[in-house]
Amino acid sequence: MRATIRILGIDPGLRRTGWGVIDVDGNRLGFVACGAVASDDRAPLGERLVAIHAGLTRVVETYAPAEAAVEATFVNKDAAATLKLGQARGVALLVPALAGLAVAEYAPTLIKKTVVGTGQGDKAQIRMMVQVLLPKAAPDTHDAADALAIAVCHAHHRTSAVLRATLAKVAGA
Amino acid sequence: MRATIRILGIDPGLRRTGWGVIDVDGNRLGFVACGAVASDDRAPLGERLVAIHAGLTRVVETYAPAEAAVEATFVNKDAAATLKLGQARGVALLVPALAGLAVAEYAPTLIKKTVVGTGQGDKAQIRMMVQVLLPKAAPDTHDAADALAIAVCHAHHRTSAVLRATLAKVAGA
Repeated sequence: MRATIRILGIDPGLRRTGWGVIDVDGNRLGFVACGAVASDDRAPLGERLVAIHAGLTRVVETYAPAEAAVEATFVNKDAAATLKLGQARGVALLVPALAGLAVAEYAPTLIKKTVVGTGQGDKAQIRMMVQVLLPKAAPDTHDAADALAIAVCHAHHRTSAVLRATLAKVAGA
Repeated sequence: MRATIRILGIDPGLRRTGWGVIDVDGNRLGFVACGAVASDDRAPLGERLVAIHAGLTRVVETYAPAEAAVEATFVNKDAAATLKLGQARGVALLVPALAGLAVAEYAPTLIKKTVVGTGQGDKAQIRMMVQVLLPKAAPDTHDAADALAIAVCHAHHRTSAVLRATLAKVAGA
C-alpha cells in the first residue's frame, strides 16, 4: 500500500519567491498548486521579509505539505546579491521548518539533471519539462516553474532513497 | 516630558546571534538585558534558523522593545560565509518586523565610531566602551556586547534625528 506524499518546493528570492506543491504516489506525480510571493523592493528589508514569511506561511497552512525542498543556492560572485538572497532564503527555510517539516536541499545542477536530463538546462527548458511532467501545471512565472522543478527533484530522490533503503533491507534479509 | 524608549540591538550570526536591550531617556542610557542565541552547527539549517527565531521571539516577548536595530552586515569576500550570515540575518530581521517594530540598520563603522569614537575599534574596545556606557551590563560574549553597541548606536542616532527635527521646527517657527 502506498501513501501519497505532498511536497513543497521553494525557489527563494528577495524580490520573488517561487513555490510549488505536488503530490507523489510511487512514481506518479500530481500537480497541486504553484505561485510566487512578491515583495515590494521600495519597502524596508524587514517588511519584505515579513511579506515572504506571510506568503509562505499561507501556502504551508493551505496545502499542508509533508516535506519541503529548497534549492541549495548558487553562490554568486556578487557579495551584495548573495547577502540579499541569503536573507530571503533564511526566511524561506524557516517557514516549513517552523511547521515541523524536514527541509531538503538540492544543488541547481541536480535539479536540472533530474528534470531536464542534463545539468545545463536553462529556465525555458525547465519550464517546458515541468509542464510535460505535470500537465495540469501552468506556472505563470519562472520562479513558480523552478519551485515545481525543485519539488519534482525531491520526489525523485526521496523515492530513490526509500528504494535504496528497501533494497538494502531485502539484501540483508 | 520625556518618554523612555526601549531598544533591541541584534548582531546576527548563524552560530551565535547576539542581542542587547537598553532603555533610552533623553541622553540617559539604561542597561536592561543581553545575551546570545546559539544554534547547533551539526543540526540541519532549517532547525538552526528555528532556534534563532525561537530565541529572538522570546527576547521580543520578554522585553517588549519599541524599536530594533541590526548591523548592516559587513559583506565578506567569502561567498559561502556571506550566504550563511544572510540566512541568519533574514531571520534576525524578520522577528522584530513580525512584532511590528521598525528595524534600523547601521554600518559597522558608524557603530564603532559612535561607541568607541573611531571607525576602527576592535571587539575588545567595543566591549570595554559598552561597559563604560552601560555600567550594569556584563555581556559574557562579544556577540552580546556588539548587540548592545548596535542598540547604543541607534539610541544616539535616533535622538540626533529627533533633535534635528526639533531644531528645524524651532528655526522655522
